[in-house]
Amino acid sequence: MNTYKIAVIPGDGIGLEVVPAAIDVLNKIAEIDGSFRFEWTYFPWGCDYYLEHGVMMPEDGIETLKKYDQIFLGAVGMPELVPDHISLWGLLIKIRREMKQSINVRPAKLLAGLESPLKNPQNFDITVVRENSEGEYSDSGGRIHSGSDEIAIQNAVFTRKGTERAMRYAFELAKNSKGHVTSATKSNGLTYSMPFWDEVFETVKVDYPEIKTVSNHIDALAAYMVMKPQELDVIVASNLFGDILTDLGGAIMGSIGIAPAANLNIEREYPSMFEPVHGSAPDIAGKGIANPIGQIWTGKMMLDFLGNHEAGSRLLNAIEKTLASGIKTGDIGGTSTLSEVKEAIIKNLI
Amino acid sequence: MNTYKIAVIPGDGIGLEVVPAAIDVLNKIAEIDGSFRFEWTYFPWGCDYYLEHGVMMPEDGIETLKKYDQIFLGAVGMPELVPDHISLWGLLIKIRREMKQSINVRPAKLLAGLESPLKNPQNFDITVVRENSEGEYSDSGGRIHSGSDEIAIQNAVFTRKGTERAMRYAFELAKNSKGHVTSATKSNGLTYSMPFWDEVFETVKVDYPEIKTVSNHIDALAAYMVMKPQELDVIVASNLFGDILTDLGGAIMGSIGIAPAANLNIEREYPSMFEPVHGSAPDIAGKGIANPIGQIWTGKMMLDFLGNHEAGSRLLNAIEKTLASGIKTGDIGGTSTLSEVKEAIIKNLI
Ligand SMILES: CC(C)[C@H](C(=O)O)[C@@H](O)C(=O)O
Ligand SMILES: CC(C)[C@H](C(=O)O)[C@@H](O)C(=O)O
Repeated sequence: MNTYKIAVIPGDGIGLEVVPAAIDVLNKIAEIDGSFRFEWTYFPWGCDYYLEHGVMMPEDGIETLKKYDQIFLGAVGMPELVPDHISLWGLLIKIRREMKQSINVRPAKLLAGLESPLKNPQNFDITVVRENSEGEYSDSGGRIHSGSDEIAIQNAVFTRKGTERAMRYAFELAKNSKGHVTSATKSNGLTYSMPFWDEVFETVKVDYPEIKTVSNHIDALAAYMVMKPQELDVIVASNLFGDILTDLGGAIMGSIGIAPAANLNIEREYPSMFEPVHGSAPDIAGKGIANPIGQIWTGKMMLDFLGNHEAGSRLLNAIEKTLASGIKTGDIGGTSTLSEVKEAIIKNLI
Repeated sequence: MNTYKIAVIPGDGIGLEVVPAAIDVLNKIAEIDGSFRFEWTYFPWGCDYYLEHGVMMPEDGIETLKKYDQIFLGAVGMPELVPDHISLWGLLIKIRREMKQSINVRPAKLLAGLESPLKNPQNFDITVVRENSEGEYSDSGGRIHSGSDEIAIQNAVFTRKGTERAMRYAFELAKNSKGHVTSATKSNGLTYSMPFWDEVFETVKVDYPEIKTVSNHIDALAAYMVMKPQELDVIVASNLFGDILTDLGGAIMGSIGIAPAANLNIEREYPSMFEPVHGSAPDIAGKGIANPIGQIWTGKMMLDFLGNHEAGSRLLNAIEKTLASGIKTGDIGGTSTLSEVKEAIIKNLI
């Protein structure tokens, strides 16, 4: 029997509600499967912690997390009380960086029972591989002059290593999907980073002659996701472009509250972090009405990364069955509460 | 009788077809209106010109264009033969920059007769004000090291002047629309440019107490455009974010082939340039099937900028009437040719 030691960071807002729900579901699936169990250790880090201690997590937080197999995170942010650059760069982005979770994977797939805002949403099944460690999110830049002459500069830094790693991961995924990789570029407007991105893509694709490829500018690709999502398969994108495309992915699925995500250390040197696309949604927090499916589906991604594919499929089936039966939260057109959705998913596991 | 001297640059691909069609329509409307006429001067600049002369436009091209009241441009690009960074930075972006067309305005509006890919597209009417002279498109950056150590750096440069100008323009527009401005930000990820952007927005909005405002992160805002476009009014965005949002605007309208745009020198020191959102579409060029509506609607924006609002409304009505009667090109679900659409619009002007 495998025991997975998971560090749990519910974080802020609805994270505090959806994480325990997802853990109930994951415990149940472990029980059904019988070949593994979870050992959950909670860390109360986030904005409340910050308001009390002046930091988002203790100084040795990263060292502590390294002792766990994986990290299961809810959401971070309380913009009314803690500026985003403190809460996110002090916890979420800090973990992504320091744990070298350089790949972010986010599927967008139309599940039975979900109402897409698209009129004719054919059966799309997209996986966005987002570079997660550098690029536009490089925390490099500064300001000069003041008053009406003030100038702000933001530097995007792309390394061959980081760019190539994301691309190779995308090509590997495409081997097991429809065999198609789309590269998100903007080399016609961003004349240093994106021509470099394109060059690396041209080099990497040579190693995957069986995979079909295309490069699309991010503006056109965003439109494409709305017009013809069914023609897309794996997309590889920079940190910022991946961020935008995956929220769009959530939108065409019907709700950001559905979309799962994984921040992967593909070398498995440090734990990976499983964290849904949605944020802390302070406006609906504490009311028991948040959609737990993004977090639960994120649990499926953790099962897959741990090698438990059968349990992962079982979980996704239970989610679909629940949605198809009409048990859903308000954001996706239902009237059920968070815990009703969770209970239904648990029932549908069997 | 006003005579407007317009420099015409059809450019490449379908630009060569849609521009003459739009000019026929604009001449007709001038004739109907009776208070103004156009004098069109063609410039054969673009990729063919480049292949012959090694430059996209003559050295004194910018000086030449300055003699005209406005510029009417089709599309630029022939990526198979001329790299984008040459064709675009040698013509399109060069004109935007050197003519100080620092504001790009692009409406997204559901016209009668258009089929949106959205299931339930309520009557949205969005205007995106895009900063058009700096930001992420700053042509500043470089590379260091080679081989597997290579690094590319792209610098985004935001000035207070440029940022504030775009925002003030957005607020002015909002006075005549629904009184709401959304600022596209990403200050939680881009920690230098976007916090600056947010600060400028906070300062500028104080001068417009009657306008409601909100800041949305670009990822959430892209999703918003798909989920609830009817709740948006004026959006102000950086160069890159505006680029992405306006293609999305085209997508939710039903086709990029519809979307109009204006590159404005709001100080009226140099000519402005009217150029639709779509590109040169080499795959369908020369077949007489391109959608001329993006270019024709762009003509309406030129009429408005020249102060001919009545003629502008008449033109938009004729477009809507034509679409509603089912006369449309293939990209928006019809079977008509470019010239059939043009003729129908001309008929519907009267
Ligand atoms: C062609 C390209 C450089 C251009 C841009 O990004 O500005 C286009 O996408 C547009 O939106 O006008
Ligand atoms: C909260 C924010 C910094 C984050 C990001 O942009 O990476 C979020 O949007 C996401 O996609 O995980």
